[in-house]
Amino acid sequence: MNGADEQPMKTVHVELGARRYPIYIAAGLLAREDLFAPHIDGRQVMVVTNETVAPLYLETVLARLGADRCEAVILPDGEQYKNFTELNKIFDALLTHRFARDCTLVALGGGVVGDMTGFAAACYQRGVPFIQVPTTLLAMVDSSVGGKTGINHPLGKNMIGAFHQPRAVVIDTDTLATLDDRQLRAGIAEVIKYGLIRDEAFFSWLDANMEELLRRDPAALAYAIEHSCLNKAEVVAADEREGGVRALLNLGHTFGHAIEAALGYRDWLHGEAVAAGMCMAARLSRALGWLDVEALARIEGLIKRAELPAFAPPQLSAATLREFMAVDKKVKGGRVRLVLLKGIGEALVTADYGEGPLEAVLKESLAG
Amino acid sequence: MNGADEQPMKTVHVELGARRYPIYIAAGLLAREDLFAPHIDGRQVMVVTNETVAPLYLETVLARLGADRCEAVILPDGEQYKNFTELNKIFDALLTHRFARDCTLVALGGGVVGDMTGFAAACYQRGVPFIQVPTTLLAMVDSSVGGKTGINHPLGKNMIGAFHQPRAVVIDTDTLATLDDRQLRAGIAEVIKYGLIRDEAFFSWLDANMEELLRRDPAALAYAIEHSCLNKAEVVAADEREGGVRALLNLGHTFGHAIEAALGYRDWLHGEAVAAGMCMAARLSRALGWLDVEALARIEGLIKRAELPAFAPPQLSAATLREFMAVDKKVKGGRVRLVLLKGIGEALVTADYGEGPLEAVLKESLAG
Repeated sequence: MNGADEQPMKTVHVELGARRYPIYIAAGLLAREDLFAPHIDGRQVMVVTNETVAPLYLETVLARLGADRCEAVILPDGEQYKNFTELNKIFDALLTHRFARDCTLVALGGGVVGDMTGFAAACYQRGVPFIQVPTTLLAMVDSSVGGKTGINHPLGKNMIGAFHQPRAVVIDTDTLATLDDRQLRAGIAEVIKYGLIRDEAFFSWLDANMEELLRRDPAALAYAIEHSCLNKAEVVAADEREGGVRALLNLGHTFGHAIEAALGYRDWLHGEAVAAGMCMAARLSRALGWLDVEALARIEGLIKRAELPAFAPPQLSAATLREFMAVDKKVKGGRVRLVLLKGIGEALVTADYGEGPLEAVLKESLAG
Repeated sequence: MNGADEQPMKTVHVELGARRYPIYIAAGLLAREDLFAPHIDGRQVMVVTNETVAPLYLETVLARLGADRCEAVILPDGEQYKNFTELNKIFDALLTHRFARDCTLVALGGGVVGDMTGFAAACYQRGVPFIQVPTTLLAMVDSSVGGKTGINHPLGKNMIGAFHQPRAVVIDTDTLATLDDRQLRAGIAEVIKYGLIRDEAFFSWLDANMEELLRRDPAALAYAIEHSCLNKAEVVAADEREGGVRALLNLGHTFGHAIEAALGYRDWLHGEAVAAGMCMAARLSRALGWLDVEALARIEGLIKRAELPAFAPPQLSAATLREFMAVDKKVKGGRVRLVLLKGIGEALVTADYGEGPLEAVLKESLAG
C-alpha cells in the first residue's frame, strides 16, 4: 500500500482549545494502528460505514482497531438515506450491543456516513467521542472536518443536527483509488470553493493543475487535500459555531441545497449541486457588478474543466428553487442571506442582492 | 389569578457564564409578558405542548407571546410518546412554517414535553434557543432545569439526547392547580431526592411538611420548588456535563429507568419509578452497612407518606431489571455505577457494591 513515491504524512490541526484535534493526511494510513489508539479511551468501538465502502475497507479498519472490541453498522449508500430511519440503525446497534458512554464511534465512508455517525455520536447518551475516516474526496476536504453533523429532512438538507467535533480525522489518500470519477469530481467542487472564498493563490494552482487532479496524480491530490484542510481548519478555529466567517464556507450551498432538496436528494451528488450553485452565486455577483466578466468566465471555465455542472437541472423551475432556498439555515429576519463573491478569493454574506437579479439568475441558470 | 396571599416572585439563577439563565417562580407568571420578551430574539416562536395541557394554558401563553408570530405543536401526552416519531412532528412543524435559526421554541408542559422540545431545539438547524414553561411539579423541580434533553429508545430511557440549556425557566405555580394528585406525588419524589443526596435540612423540612405539600398548601409548594431549584442550579453550575457531582442527581434513576423501560414506559410515572428506585438504593446502601436502619426507615416512611411506591412492580423479575440496568448511561468500563447513600443528605457514585447484595435487594424490592 505504501508506494515508492509515498509522500510524508501531513498533519493539520484544528485549533479548538481543549477540543483541538489532528487531521492526518497520507497514503496508507488505514494500516497504521498508532494513529487511532491515542484517540480511543474506552473498550467499545462501533464502526459505521456503508454498503459500498464495507467490502473495500471495513476488514482493514476492524483489524487495526482490534476486532474483538468492535461492532459495525453498514448503512445503504446515498444521500437519500441520510434520514431518521437509517440514523436509528446506529442507535439500535449501540444499544443492542450495550455500548456505554465511554465508547467511540468511527465513521468510515463519505460525507453521508460522516455526518450521520457524527450526529449519532453527538446524541448517543448525550454525546460520545468519534473519529472520522473519510474515503471520498468530498469528505476528506470538507465534511469530515469542522464538526458539522446531521441528517436531512424532506423539507430541507442538514436541517437536523449538531456541532460535534471528532477526536481525529484520518485521511488515507489510497482510498481515493476506489472512488469513481464522478465522486472525485464532486469532491473537487468543494476544493474549488476554498480558492473562491479565501485563497486566490490556491484557485490559481487549481486552474493550473486541474488536469493532474482529474487523472489522480498523487502529489496533486495530496496538495489539494492538505490546502483544503488548512483552509477549513483556519475558518473553523476562527468561528466554530458559524457566527460569522464560517458562513462563507456555504458558497454555492444555498443554491445547491435547493437543487438537492428539489430533486429529493437523488440523481445529483452534493458536490455537483454545489458546483452549479457556485456558478449561480458567481452569476448573481456579476449581475450586481461585484465580479468582473473575466472572473466569472474563469470560474465557469474551471467548473466545466472539472466536468462539473455549471447550471441547475433544467427540469426544475425558478419558483421551486426559490421556495427551497427560503428554508435555508442562513435565513435571518425573514431574508435569505447568500454567500456571494467580490472577486476570486473574496466572499461575503449578504441579503442585499434584490429579488429581481436573483430571479434573473435562477432563470438563466436553468436554461443552461 | 393573583390571589391576595400571593408570594413574591423568586428568581434562582443557573450560573453557567455566558449561558447563565433565570428560573422565575411564583403564582400567576403565565400572565406576565415581561418575563418572556427579554429571552426571545427573533420573530418566530413555536410553542410545543401536549393534548392535556393545550386546552388549559395554550391560549394564555400564545396571547402572552403574541399570537401573530406563534405556531403550536400539540403532542400526545405520556412517556411512551417520547420517541422519534413524535419528535419529528416538531421538526415537521418548524420546517413547514419555515422557521429560521433565529426562532425560539417554548416547552409548555411536563417533563416529556420539556425534554422533547429541548432536544428539538438542540438539533433544529444545529441549535436554536428555547424557554421552559413547566406545568407539572416534576418538571418544575427537576427536568426543566439543567439542560438535559432527549428522547427514549425502546432499549433504554433518555438514551438519545443533548445538553442544551434553556434561555429561561418560567414556573407559574398556579398551573399545579390542574395537576392530578398522582402527578403531584410523582414530582414530590424528585423533591425528596434533593434532601437525600445533599440537603439534610431540606429532608427534615419535607418530613415535617409532607402533609402540607400533599394538600397543596401554596407556601409549602413554593418553598419546595424554590429549594429544589436552588439545589439543582448549584449542582448544574458545578458540573454541567455530568463529569462528577451531577451524577448524584440520578439517585434512584438507574433502578427507576430499568422499571420504566421494563414496563415499556407505560403504567408507572417517572417519579413513581424514581421513588421505588430511591428506596432500592437506600436498601442496597443499608445492606452494605453505609446507612443505618433508622435512616432507611425514615426514607421508606417519607416515600410511603407521599403515597409513592417503595417497591418495584411485582410482575417484573430481578433478571429483567438487572438487564435493563446494564444499559444505563453511568456504565463505565463495563460496570454499572450506582448512586448510593452514606446517610441522609450524603450520596456517592460507586461500582463497589457487589453483585450479591444488588441481587438480594432486587429480589427483596420485587416482593414488597
